[in-house]
Amino acid sequence: MLDLFKIRYPIIQAPMAGSDNAEFVAAASEAGILGSLGAQYRTPEQIKTLIRDIRNLTDKPFAVNVFALPQLEKPSDEQIDSSKKHLAQYYDRFQTQVPSNQSVVDLINSEDQLQAILDARVPVVSFTLGQLDKRWIDAFKANSAVVLGTATNVKEAIALEAAGVDAITAQSTEAGGHRGTFIGPVETSLIGGFALIPQIVDAVQVPVIAAGGIMDGRGIAAAIALGAKGVQMGTAFLTTSECPVHENYKRMIVTHEADDTVITRVFSGGAARSIRNVYIEENQEAPLLPFPFHNSLTRPFRAEANKTGDTDYTNLWSGQNGRLARPIGICELIHQLVSETNEVLIKLGASRI
Amino acid sequence: MLDLFKIRYPIIQAPMAGSDNAEFVAAASEAGILGSLGAQYRTPEQIKTLIRDIRNLTDKPFAVNVFALPQLEKPSDEQIDSSKKHLAQYYDRFQTQVPSNQSVVDLINSEDQLQAILDARVPVVSFTLGQLDKRWIDAFKANSAVVLGTATNVKEAIALEAAGVDAITAQSTEAGGHRGTFIGPVETSLIGGFALIPQIVDAVQVPVIAAGGIMDGRGIAAAIALGAKGVQMGTAFLTTSECPVHENYKRMIVTHEADDTVITRVFSGGAARSIRNVYIEENQEAPLLPFPFHNSLTRPFRAEANKTGDTDYTNLWSGQNGRLARPIGICELIHQLVSETNEVLIKLGASRI
Repeated sequence: MLDLFKIRYPIIQAPMAGSDNAEFVAAASEAGILGSLGAQYRTPEQIKTLIRDIRNLTDKPFAVNVFALPQLEKPSDEQIDSSKKHLAQYYDRFQTQVPSNQSVVDLINSEDQLQAILDARVPVVSFTLGQLDKRWIDAFKANSAVVLGTATNVKEAIALEAAGVDAITAQSTEAGGHRGTFIGPVETSLIGGFALIPQIVDAVQVPVIAAGGIMDGRGIAAAIALGAKGVQMGTAFLTTSECPVHENYKRMIVTHEADDTVITRVFSGGAARSIRNVYIEENQEAPLLPFPFHNSLTRPFRAEANKTGDTDYTNLWSGQNGRLARPIGICELIHQLVSETNEVLIKLGASRI
Repeated sequence: MLDLFKIRYPIIQAPMAGSDNAEFVAAASEAGILGSLGAQYRTPEQIKTLIRDIRNLTDKPFAVNVFALPQLEKPSDEQIDSSKKHLAQYYDRFQTQVPSNQSVVDLINSEDQLQAILDARVPVVSFTLGQLDKRWIDAFKANSAVVLGTATNVKEAIALEAAGVDAITAQSTEAGGHRGTFIGPVETSLIGGFALIPQIVDAVQVPVIAAGGIMDGRGIAAAIALGAKGVQMGTAFLTTSECPVHENYKRMIVTHEADDTVITRVFSGGAARSIRNVYIEENQEAPLLPFPFHNSLTRPFRAEANKTGDTDYTNLWSGQNGRLARPIGICELIHQLVSETNEVLIKLGASRI
């Protein structure tokens, strides 16, 4: 995996659209791991600018991540209006504009995003929430990019390998944020790392990268024990000083109760793991648009809540192990992770059962 | 953990009430691990006989497991009749007697079960689905038994330690069968091993035993990496030649699709992980009695289905990693597990990140 991605440590900073910026991604890459930019929700122009900014900050490899969603049926005006009616209380509370129905269904063209990424000749392209069209995988590979897909079950891993990806991220149920599931229902793909990692490792030839609940040297060593060639960590980077999310959110990650994350669709329409909060409780029965349209609907007031550090009314993506996160700089975090992992490995090497 | 339980390898054969017998438990203990008998659903007389039988087969330590359920409110005749009406199709299909309402609510007195276990002076008492009364924990410890509780979240682990248990099994979401949750809702205690194990290890002083999705040397080494002192494995033993379950069930465990287990209440009223089958699909909307009363209601036809190897209409408890199970004898399984684990540990010891 180190040779494949041309990185020093087998760690990927998980793409976190909405919680990243160029400085954050570049800091991760500079620290010897693979930084990842979330291209979702960004225009081709924004993507190009961000990639240029990253390159101005580091000459090390980095990844750009896209959603590989299938062709989506747009929700009807009736559906949108029904959701808006329910959400009126939140637009009111945060004094934000109600998005027009047109703006909700007008998603940024994903082919244009992909073309911008291809044109920029980025070192690594990763994707989730679907199977990137083989035509694009081939184009990126022809352009010397390493292509990384995301699987939440064995069927997806096999399909990704068949489509030609260079490596597969195995996203287990412990992971925070959106579930990458694209074959079968999300509910049956909430598979713990102990089950998901070895089964995918056994099913494919390409390197498998473990993602979900990995926060320290113990987790990294465990992932390697299960057959992973590396790890992808998201929540562990959310609390770093470089991460551009509100301090209140960072504090929630390290202080929430251990069992207080849930898989919910209330923020975006897509199943994602968040720390439980008021908004989740209030929206159990809410009429939701399918992903990612509901995301567009809730974005205005979530953006406002994020700005003011109101953790009651925005998504608090976190894995099941957020309490082990550290409020330190990325470089220091990587130093600690590497030395911890090697300590655990040495100890394991000296033990027998 | 080896000293505590006086065993050779840090492995516990998970208690599996309904899938065990004296020969099975004794074979596990004879192989150098801790065999466990599920005392649930058994009368004090049956428990005594089984313990005597185990002792006739092995002089090695073994555990007896009980449910530590809180005081239960019995369902009303109306509730029972409503469930029975729905279940009539299954009593019919398997030509089994409909249990009387009285027999459904007449649970075996758990104090009598505990007294039988205490009188038998068993080496290890384990419990799940609750907090065993401190009075009983003290009595077992005074009787030289090692006491082992089950936690599915950090709060439960802290409560168990405070009550005086000698060790804690951390049951992660990967595990098959009943969820042991007793503090908070089951839904938020479906925590993957990567998150559950280190958080419990950090929260308590007593040894932590990892349970859930552990099937081979990779899993055992990963559990140790995360800080566990040993592992508890259930599904891995269901397919052994000594396990007295039907061959069709054993075959389902190793052949089902990787993502095809679900947490369901349809069999017993209690949340448990099973391979998906016809019965689960047919009972999504069924009126269920609370655990364990629904178990009594469905037992007649499940028993018949189990006997004939009909896997459509009975519980197929399995962890999320059942496909890695091996249809071999227990002694051979332990040999393989130990040598695999040590191979993985040696390899880990030689690697650095």
